[in-house]
Amino acid sequence: MPSRPSIPKGTRDFSTDEMLKRDLIFDTIKQVFKLYGYQPIETPAMENLTTLLGKYGEEGDKLLFRILNSGDFLAGIDNEDLLKREPSKLSSQLSEKGLRYDLTVPFARYVVQHRDEIVFPFKRYQIQPVWRADRPQKGRYREFFQCDVDVIGSDSLLNEYELIEIIDDIFERLKIATVIRINNRKILSGIACFIGEPDRITDITVAIDKLEKIGIQAVNEELRDKGISEEGVKKLQPFIQLKGDTWNKLSKLEEMLVQSETGKRGINEMRELFTYIKNSQLNCRVDLDLTLARGLNYYTGAIIEVRSKDVNIGSICGGGRYDNLTGVFGLEGVSGVGVSFGADRIYDVMNQLALFDNITSASSEVLVLNFGDAETKYALKILGILRKLGIKAELYPDPVKLKKQMSYADAKKIPYIIIAGEEEIKTEEVTIKNMSSGEQKKISLKDLNSYILSEIKVKG
Amino acid sequence: MPSRPSIPKGTRDFSTDEMLKRDLIFDTIKQVFKLYGYQPIETPAMENLTTLLGKYGEEGDKLLFRILNSGDFLAGIDNEDLLKREPSKLSSQLSEKGLRYDLTVPFARYVVQHRDEIVFPFKRYQIQPVWRADRPQKGRYREFFQCDVDVIGSDSLLNEYELIEIIDDIFERLKIATVIRINNRKILSGIACFIGEPDRITDITVAIDKLEKIGIQAVNEELRDKGISEEGVKKLQPFIQLKGDTWNKLSKLEEMLVQSETGKRGINEMRELFTYIKNSQLNCRVDLDLTLARGLNYYTGAIIEVRSKDVNIGSICGGGRYDNLTGVFGLEGVSGVGVSFGADRIYDVMNQLALFDNITSASSEVLVLNFGDAETKYALKILGILRKLGIKAELYPDPVKLKKQMSYADAKKIPYIIIAGEEEIKTEEVTIKNMSSGEQKKISLKDLNSYILSEIKVKG
Repeated sequence: MPSRPSIPKGTRDFSTDEMLKRDLIFDTIKQVFKLYGYQPIETPAMENLTTLLGKYGEEGDKLLFRILNSGDFLAGIDNEDLLKREPSKLSSQLSEKGLRYDLTVPFARYVVQHRDEIVFPFKRYQIQPVWRADRPQKGRYREFFQCDVDVIGSDSLLNEYELIEIIDDIFERLKIATVIRINNRKILSGIACFIGEPDRITDITVAIDKLEKIGIQAVNEELRDKGISEEGVKKLQPFIQLKGDTWNKLSKLEEMLVQSETGKRGINEMRELFTYIKNSQLNCRVDLDLTLARGLNYYTGAIIEVRSKDVNIGSICGGGRYDNLTGVFGLEGVSGVGVSFGADRIYDVMNQLALFDNITSASSEVLVLNFGDAETKYALKILGILRKLGIKAELYPDPVKLKKQMSYADAKKIPYIIIAGEEEIKTEEVTIKNMSSGEQKKISLKDLNSYILSEIKVKG
Repeated sequence: MPSRPSIPKGTRDFSTDEMLKRDLIFDTIKQVFKLYGYQPIETPAMENLTTLLGKYGEEGDKLLFRILNSGDFLAGIDNEDLLKREPSKLSSQLSEKGLRYDLTVPFARYVVQHRDEIVFPFKRYQIQPVWRADRPQKGRYREFFQCDVDVIGSDSLLNEYELIEIIDDIFERLKIATVIRINNRKILSGIACFIGEPDRITDITVAIDKLEKIGIQAVNEELRDKGISEEGVKKLQPFIQLKGDTWNKLSKLEEMLVQSETGKRGINEMRELFTYIKNSQLNCRVDLDLTLARGLNYYTGAIIEVRSKDVNIGSICGGGRYDNLTGVFGLEGVSGVGVSFGADRIYDVMNQLALFDNITSASSEVLVLNFGDAETKYALKILGILRKLGIKAELYPDPVKLKKQMSYADAKKIPYIIIAGEEEIKTEEVTIKNMSSGEQKKISLKDLNSYILSEIKVKG
């Protein structure tokens, strides 16, 4: 016998049990997105490489999965080029399509391509897999799902607030306690100006972002290593160590950044957003956190990140405002804001917190036992009644030993079995057995309707 | 301004409107699958090429999308091989993964790989995209969705019957009138024996399969061209022209194939299956059709195909029994039966029959107009009430001219708008406008609950 077949490393099969749990997450997310007026779109798995290349940095380009051109893929390449063996040059000749790396760039492409049909502000969500040729490791896969929700074509901070509400609503429904941290790129710009290093905003925030992980000494060291002046590092300390609640922080920031127009705009944005939050009844805590950076070059306003209170697994949702998503495809001046939910990490958090334990099985609610040809007609009649009531039901397909049929019901956690043998057929009855209590009851076929409705439907 | 970005030919974006219609199809299919006790699995988009190659014939191998290996993909290829420029040989060196071509082969691989965890009979469904490097044309895409439902590990014909019920149930819910045609590979084998050409079953059925399209004369000509003897063609005529209802056909077949053990087994299978069907209350017609072939080499028992009665678009669902799905991966003796629903064609049929016309929009049911900062707090309160009731609702994010906000509601077909300006706030009321009737009503905020429940929830 040959060795068992397998799948590419970094990819996964999802079993029926895993799908049940994953669907709970996806269905909850979709339901909330819709409740707030967002609608789905989908884009193809493959995009032209011209769409993808250069959007994720040099490292990202290397992580793209490329599709080998069909047919004679060497046709346009001469021998000289071939023998030079330059992977990066050859790959662009061998391949003109790649698998999507995220949902953001395809969305930007979508908006530009279809801008004449879209009603703005455009509130869309998108839940699809993405692919990255990353080195696989625990919790990092080469195929994984992103759940993005964005509104574009509106500058209003009500959109940022709505996303906070959506985050709160989803994690409340999933029973995950979270903390939302918010920062603002404009405030970070103001700080960079204030310490006299306006062009070093990336280096500064990359360093600050590590505060929690490596501590203040190491952060300061990194800043110096990156060439931030001693004066700059010193002036930065009050910001890094800013204490107190959000309103306190904002007041102090206002004093410190009084000379930065950009900084002040950022502070005003945060004041407005936190006013909405203060007046709301959110379940989770929302903090202003100046050390939050997240793919900074991309964001132009609010930056949002969500973590589980109970499981230390990093960000389970994040995003922010970007003022020029579509510029790279030739459409300027379209502002957007959005967040992305990390389904795989949310799954891991829920598993660790045993939040899937009470999940109802998606398998059948009733198994009708198979007694053989003579009883089949009666069994099919019962199935018809059950399914008309919306009860998930199946007949064991083969007339094998009842013990085997029962152990099938056990293995699939089917809560009820129906016994309809010669005796039951004679009296137009069925025997229903509750698999967890072991209780068994005989009822007439014409009472099956009301019995099912009261017994099974209520519990199911 | 640069030219608009685009997507690879043969692929599609799905807009919010299209997603709404597609989700109706997918949700209906999933709901029925579950009702009959089937559970979902998912497999990765990429499979190892060793899993895919050789499973779809030579032509299929060419249509696989291959993933270029990451890193230095030329490393293992010497100059001599490179300069030979043989695409088929080089592609297997440049690439070790491919995109799945269908759901059947990944499913077989899944069953063999996970056979120790699976409870048999295994009733699974799988709804995922597949990719084929086919020449794109009307109705044929390079990325399209398959919806497969199979039960494996049981020989019972009750499974075939259950699939017929599922087909009937799904198309009844989608309001598509259909005809199901059924054939049996064993009967076809019997016929091939009867006419003295037992090894030519493929040529015979490929020719017969065209009867509807090209007529009896052309079919006979093709049979002769393929080298079927004049005697054989003559003996075949009664089968091709077999008339009458299914029971008539089966009786006549029984007489004609009296000497073929395989043929008789096929006839008995069809007798059993059509007895279940006769005793049922299916909505669609089910015919025995000896001219139905469908990828014959694969099927070993029942062959099933479904067509729309009203739209001539070819098969919208099809499948059959296969006795050796997993043999190619080293697991022998596992019989299965399944069908696949063609979501794209079903979509086209429903579009042509205007079956999407009454679909409820997934967009918001209520738009709250934005009057500016002073009114925002009140507006957010209203949104909270609506969403708690499960009403999809949104606030227009910017305080722009009301005319613009109204035309947004129009374009998105939002049925109700809520006006909550200075006046309404003073009296703790809201004005609700029905966008289709133009009717407008002022109600107090504390009556909003019951009003919404009676007015919107009932209609929505």
